[in-house]
Amino acid sequence: MLAVRSLISKPCPFLVKSQIASLIHTSANSHSSAKVAVVLSGCGVYDGTEIHEASAILVHLSREGAEVQMFAPDVTQMHVIDHGKGQPAEKESRNVLAESARIARGNITDLAKLNASNHDAVIFPGGFGAAKNLSTFAVDGKDCSVNKEVERILKDFHKARKPIGLCCISPVLAAKVLPGVEVTVGHEEEQGGKWPYAGTAHAITALGAKHKIKGVTEAHVDPKNKVVTSPAFMCDTKLHHIFDGIGAMVRDVLKLTGK
Amino acid sequence: MLAVRSLISKPCPFLVKSQIASLIHTSANSHSSAKVAVVLSGCGVYDGTEIHEASAILVHLSREGAEVQMFAPDVTQMHVIDHGKGQPAEKESRNVLAESARIARGNITDLAKLNASNHDAVIFPGGFGAAKNLSTFAVDGKDCSVNKEVERILKDFHKARKPIGLCCISPVLAAKVLPGVEVTVGHEEEQGGKWPYAGTAHAITALGAKHKIKGVTEAHVDPKNKVVTSPAFMCDTKLHHIFDGIGAMVRDVLKLTGK
Repeated sequence: MLAVRSLISKPCPFLVKSQIASLIHTSANSHSSAKVAVVLSGCGVYDGTEIHEASAILVHLSREGAEVQMFAPDVTQMHVIDHGKGQPAEKESRNVLAESARIARGNITDLAKLNASNHDAVIFPGGFGAAKNLSTFAVDGKDCSVNKEVERILKDFHKARKPIGLCCISPVLAAKVLPGVEVTVGHEEEQGGKWPYAGTAHAITALGAKHKIKGVTEAHVDPKNKVVTSPAFMCDTKLHHIFDGIGAMVRDVLKLTGK
Repeated sequence: MLAVRSLISKPCPFLVKSQIASLIHTSANSHSSAKVAVVLSGCGVYDGTEIHEASAILVHLSREGAEVQMFAPDVTQMHVIDHGKGQPAEKESRNVLAESARIARGNITDLAKLNASNHDAVIFPGGFGAAKNLSTFAVDGKDCSVNKEVERILKDFHKARKPIGLCCISPVLAAKVLPGVEVTVGHEEEQGGKWPYAGTAHAITALGAKHKIKGVTEAHVDPKNKVVTSPAFMCDTKLHHIFDGIGAMVRDVLKLTGK
């Protein structure tokens, strides 16, 4: 009975946060000893981070032995999308850091505190949050602005010659901030619905970057800028192909850290 | 410019839902031809489905070729936890189906419409949502009640001799509904914090089920009841071990379908 009572008190998450806050993060180094920052933009494809892309990044980083710290900006989301109805929830307001904490299981830090000197690489999963909360790309396209902290971080990692990984729609952030960077968002034609966001490739060019065509299981490495990108959910395909493409991106990022 | 404009209109998710609603789900059968229902309970470990467990289940089902359909009950969450603060957000209220749709990328159905005759197996990821929204286990422990639709579904799949997969805290649902079932929630002692929820194993016994000790990368199969369980985040370990344990569960579930 004591054991049962002990259990009953445990599922209350706000009582046990200290016990479970570090469940994802360990410092075991099975292969890589790199310290990697992962930048989230909410929780859910339509108004935040694409959940499966974030999870795939974390699984691959874990398997490679990297040490992960997650960050998100402490700002209000552009809007809240009811993901069941596919429509804005007009009266709702959510905070990007608080919602990103759902993916991070509570272990997340304000993006303002991310300092490139403390990490060997940074990775941005996709989802509309990158185009709505980390930039205004969803509204302004090639004339978008990028969140000041995101811009600072991209420039600092770039200047320090530390690799930057991005997938899905997030490469637009690098395309905007790092002139002439090479990135992929997949293919440049819709191909009967396989690449429903193919137009993004042209926006990449309009932003002053170079677009490289890649398949969903591939990553493109820009060795000069140390920027690694993969199409992920820009492709309408089976989830494990997206998972594998993200794995290629993560491994290329870790290789470029040299750790 | 046309391409850029075309892109700008596209990231607006409520305009393109029809294009992207089925991104995760395909009917390609690389290995298995099983039709699997996945039952979610929200979006976020502290008040809903554990995101990484759900994603791992979907990646493994995709790789095995299974056809997936996701479901969640159209009910209000027990409460909303601010995952950043680890505290309840007192004034907030969220719907389990709408939040689960974040994991499902919008492609989800009311649990009331889940009919065992249309599927070969059912899988329940964990997260406190299973103990707060699918049952009252988080509050009532061994005296918990189970959501009527969840109870119906577990009984229907069991009666039809179709396999049921559960991980993390979700095995309590089977323990409550299927008398004498064998399940694992990992180890029965905390082992210095490696198994922070070890007391759950004793609650499983108190519910009238049999607990089997398993490691985080393993699944336990109860062949008589066709119930397959894996500890997942009951263990404080690296994420890829949890991913692998869930893979073992998914493959054992698919094997039991015979498809």
